[in-house]
Amino acid sequence: MKTPSMNNVCDPGDLHAYLTHKRQRVNQALDRIWERYEARPTPLLEAMRYSLEAGGKRLRPILCICAAETVGGSENTVIEAACALELIHTYSLIHDDLPGMDNDDFRRGKPTCHKMYGEATAILAGDALLTAAFEVLAEAVQQGDARVPDFKWIEAIRVIARASGVSGMVQGQMLDLASEKKAVSWEELKILQQLKTGALIQASLHVGALLGGGDSRQIQAMCAFGGYIGLAFQMADDILNVEGDARITGKPVGSDAALQKATGPSVLGLDAARAYAKDLVDRAREELAVFEENAAVLAALARYVVERDR
Amino acid sequence: MKTPSMNNVCDPGDLHAYLTHKRQRVNQALDRIWERYEARPTPLLEAMRYSLEAGGKRLRPILCICAAETVGGSENTVIEAACALELIHTYSLIHDDLPGMDNDDFRRGKPTCHKMYGEATAILAGDALLTAAFEVLAEAVQQGDARVPDFKWIEAIRVIARASGVSGMVQGQMLDLASEKKAVSWEELKILQQLKTGALIQASLHVGALLGGGDSRQIQAMCAFGGYIGLAFQMADDILNVEGDARITGKPVGSDAALQKATGPSVLGLDAARAYAKDLVDRAREELAVFEENAAVLAALARYVVERDR
Repeated sequence: MKTPSMNNVCDPGDLHAYLTHKRQRVNQALDRIWERYEARPTPLLEAMRYSLEAGGKRLRPILCICAAETVGGSENTVIEAACALELIHTYSLIHDDLPGMDNDDFRRGKPTCHKMYGEATAILAGDALLTAAFEVLAEAVQQGDARVPDFKWIEAIRVIARASGVSGMVQGQMLDLASEKKAVSWEELKILQQLKTGALIQASLHVGALLGGGDSRQIQAMCAFGGYIGLAFQMADDILNVEGDARITGKPVGSDAALQKATGPSVLGLDAARAYAKDLVDRAREELAVFEENAAVLAALARYVVERDR
Repeated sequence: MKTPSMNNVCDPGDLHAYLTHKRQRVNQALDRIWERYEARPTPLLEAMRYSLEAGGKRLRPILCICAAETVGGSENTVIEAACALELIHTYSLIHDDLPGMDNDDFRRGKPTCHKMYGEATAILAGDALLTAAFEVLAEAVQQGDARVPDFKWIEAIRVIARASGVSGMVQGQMLDLASEKKAVSWEELKILQQLKTGALIQASLHVGALLGGGDSRQIQAMCAFGGYIGLAFQMADDILNVEGDARITGKPVGSDAALQKATGPSVLGLDAARAYAKDLVDRAREELAVFEENAAVLAALARYVVERDR
């Protein structure tokens, strides 16, 4: 089995250009989503757009597109699925920030949705974004790439719903809230982070490979890659919350510690957390061997996940 | 064009038996939903089940099944779609009752979800129920009746998502909150009620007819029927809130008036609201002409929607 060498990784400059280009493409596609709704902007649509356009990295959509491209598929085929993932991610941030949840006033350096529009509107904006994700997916099938058979889209819808709900992200959020001010073991923390963050990131790669036309071996490798990357991403987030630059992350440094949340650094210590994140990326990149030289961008993305500054 | 005569309406005793039987079938199918999740009950699953099993009438699932049967389809074909509609309805009630929304302590005579499990769990239980609806729909396609082609399921998912989100129920809830302590015209109230309640009821009938195998003329008639019935249902709800028996409705009488909400009675007056609801049912029943004698149960259901006591 061939392990990807450094030659198979695109250089940081190329990755930066790739990320910028894809972010732009995703933002254009997200813009088109509003066309299906009322021409007259309502407070609800405004709140949805506010949070969706608050400067997200678009990591999940980009991972989805990159997974599709890695298996030989095209961006166009998966762009709506990529948008659906970002709609779900955005709804989860709005609800996480609510007074009844983490009660955060700022997100990405801007007032959170409920600070801008009030609590009721924020709850409903989250609900509407989650619902819109499935509307976008269903419409993508009806208007989309006829080369992707309907049963693959149905599977994509199932994978995304499963990763987002009671078997995935929402359950992770429950565990996260329950972890405050409590002794959490390393095993428990891994489950928490896999559900809270890992599941949707893994689903992004899974769906990209599935709709992009990957065979079952490729889809399996992509899911394994996604499992490692998802955990690495959350570990990096926890580390940034300890030692990041609040002006860049847009989130107050030490906010997890203030809530006495269980995080990588709080459970493992900062150095061990850093080493663990690096190890996860190495393991993730080993999974890319099946894609040979097609995995250059994905391999660079894996490194970016832990080396980013926001 | 033949108008349904009284002979085409099943008698109240038969309707009662039909509702009891279908409610039981829907409850059995809802029970099976939990099998796909963890065997060990978590607080999140418990909160979801608490609200789902808090004594709902199962009106939306029953309308969906009845629509399918009216066009010659079977209960089995649509039972999962029917469940998905109830999951969405239940999530909407949990979120409506939240402190940041209507702040209701009781629903159907029982403490609301956030009163039982806390606000964070209630927010997440609603999120998880909404997500589960789409997971159930996707799995229904994979395991379901092979006679229904995938493209019809995709359309069903689209219709349900559209009716539930920013073009339907969630926007209706926004307008409902904005209507408190404000002068609302009759035209505005009709739009509010069509979105808040009508859209999902209409979708229930639409999806039932679609998956049940109805042709486009039948689906169109069912949508028209659903449009009238949805408005009639909300009007009847508003009237029950004024003059119902709290022991039967499970909701304090006069709670809408206390919040100074715009309702049928508050905008039209009680007598005119009652007459309007009756007129809506008559118009709904005229739409059933295309189904001839097959519409007997649906015609009785239309009457039940405004004559119920809870």
